Amino acid sequence: MSDNKQLWRKNLINIEPYVAGEQPKNDRIIKLNANENPYPPAPSVQKILNSIDAAELKKYPSADAVPLKKALAERYGLEPENVFCGNGSDDVLATAFRAFFNSDKPIVYPDITYSFYPVWCELLKIPYVTKAVNKDFEIDVKDYYEENGGVVIPNPNAPTSIGVGKDFIVDLLEHNKDCIVIIDEAYADFGKYSCVELIKEYDNLIVTQTFSKSRSLAGMRVGMAFAQPELIKYMQAVKDSYNSYPLDQIAIAAASECLKDEEYFSETVEKIKKTRDEGKEILREMGFKVFDSETNFLFASHNKYPAKEIFEFVREKGIFIRYFNKPLIDNFLRITVGTDEEMNMLYSAIREFLSSKNS
Amino acid sequence: MSDNKQLWRKNLINIEPYVAGEQPKNDRIIKLNANENPYPPAPSVQKILNSIDAAELKKYPSADAVPLKKALAERYGLEPENVFCGNGSDDVLATAFRAFFNSDKPIVYPDITYSFYPVWCELLKIPYVTKAVNKDFEIDVKDYYEENGGVVIPNPNAPTSIGVGKDFIVDLLEHNKDCIVIIDEAYADFGKYSCVELIKEYDNLIVTQTFSKSRSLAGMRVGMAFAQPELIKYMQAVKDSYNSYPLDQIAIAAASECLKDEEYFSETVEKIKKTRDEGKEILREMGFKVFDSETNFLFASHNKYPAKEIFEFVREKGIFIRYFNKPLIDNFLRITVGTDEEMNMLYSAIREFLSSKNS
Repeated sequence: MSDNKQLWRKNLINIEPYVAGEQPKNDRIIKLNANENPYPPAPSVQKILNSIDAAELKKYPSADAVPLKKALAERYGLEPENVFCGNGSDDVLATAFRAFFNSDKPIVYPDITYSFYPVWCELLKIPYVTKAVNKDFEIDVKDYYEENGGVVIPNPNAPTSIGVGKDFIVDLLEHNKDCIVIIDEAYADFGKYSCVELIKEYDNLIVTQTFSKSRSLAGMRVGMAFAQPELIKYMQAVKDSYNSYPLDQIAIAAASECLKDEEYFSETVEKIKKTRDEGKEILREMGFKVFDSETNFLFASHNKYPAKEIFEFVREKGIFIRYFNKPLIDNFLRITVGTDEEMNMLYSAIREFLSSKNS
Repeated sequence: MSDNKQLWRKNLINIEPYVAGEQPKNDRIIKLNANENPYPPAPSVQKILNSIDAAELKKYPSADAVPLKKALAERYGLEPENVFCGNGSDDVLATAFRAFFNSDKPIVYPDITYSFYPVWCELLKIPYVTKAVNKDFEIDVKDYYEENGGVVIPNPNAPTSIGVGKDFIVDLLEHNKDCIVIIDEAYADFGKYSCVELIKEYDNLIVTQTFSKSRSLAGMRVGMAFAQPELIKYMQAVKDSYNSYPLDQIAIAAASECLKDEEYFSETVEKIKKTRDEGKEILREMGFKVFDSETNFLFASHNKYPAKEIFEFVREKGIFIRYFNKPLIDNFLRITVGTDEEMNMLYSAIREFLSSKNS
């Protein structure tokens, strides 16, 4: 039926069709490859789900997720006007790129970082340059002093798991007053420093976060940004210009509920951090270089065996971790922190791999 | 704190912050202003909601809404590769605009139509021209014969409520083989003709629909497009390039469930059509010009009194209908078809208005 000479093809967007990541179909698979939280969301989220009246779904949701903005503002000591909500952190970041990165000068971000940044730049025709991290994958703030069209720094960074503190962020902001600075805090709840407090001082700062990691709501697609009201208004305008009702009713309800149980939140975050820090030591004993992680994953490279080989070996055992076939990090593994039980199964599989090599 | 001379402001996107529509805060309000369905979704949707295990929400949803694509394919006699799903029809349409309207030539659509089309064109820098509808708000297919960068026709059209049949669509397609033709069928389930069948014949046709109207799931934000696999792949690529997991788990589950109960679906659609057609006669008797509607709303203009005055009068009585302060349609009211009870309250209020004029 299709004829490649047909003229409508010349107006197709110039974009490579995306190849979806590997999704294990088997429930017995141990999934440590997507930085999902191993624990369920706060128990009251179940109650909220059970109390939803399907009849209410006939109505459009709150036009700009007002109830969730209020809940987030309360939780973070801000006003609802400081909060933007979107369909996951990806949507929030893409919206910010579109709203704020309209300079002829390139935006700047680290060469090892979240893989979606260059994708959005290509799609939105935003010029960009990357700054090399050092051999320990650390970001040098001085690389970001030059005039530019905008800055994005994930803190902690992914997939390196490395975080920076307040001094770094303030230094970055002091040297970048003429552009928008986005700090992508997808993993900050597992780290040592979140710069949300700084939005009061810096009117060009956007901080993005997500419910998908520390809040165990990846399945609901909710992300947020914090900034001064003027910037939030622009993000909202971009989002609304596409879709009158961005977040659905249940996503708004579940995420808002989630914020009420801070005790459960701290408890699960602390459990993950404990499992993570123990895992770091265990992997180091097995001959891995492992960075001090401020996230819910470990970034590790074995001193003797290729990452790809370990990745494939444990995959055969039904344990999915993440391997990036990319320059500079192609000998590293990104291991999501699961439950202790899941991690013990991973360690056993790696031990099995290592002894197969020594036999 | 803000200083208007700060340089980062020059890179803000050039977009007018959106002013959200009026959302009644009072539950006793009769809301006939958003074309929502007055009936709840299929009863089994409630069961699906009650069966959701909150713990599952810790995982990311199906990467491209696979279960929903399968359910839609089955319902419409297509393959999952013919189906795209997005966060409401707005998201689906914006994605299609981005994927397919990349010509230097302007795209074409009617001058009276869905108000988001020009917004997406501005945002995506797509050149466009509009073609005037005639004095009865009808679209002349010959206006769309010229060479162009793409065509969008809503069928039935909004806010006019007027539909066209197969002959019109085939004629349109036969004269537009060198561009993408989008038929926006948000309201088609209430009309006489849906052209989904034609995607098999025309490889440049995209048909968009929504769960927000006939399926009573406005609160879940689910829309879809049907086309040949090549076009769907491009839309998916655009969507994925922004956001790895477009639809949330519960939206996928609820929408898929909705499709299983065709009896309930037909029953509610027929009820709405009956209320609508009776309403048309009632309004005509009261002195309104009312178009033959193929949607879930009525487009009406009184032969004596300004639309704005009627709009304001019934609003005072707690009944919200839609008034557009726009050229050509500023003497029309768009009235969403509610339950018979809601409509009777509207008719009473209008009668009250008319007798206040005659006294």
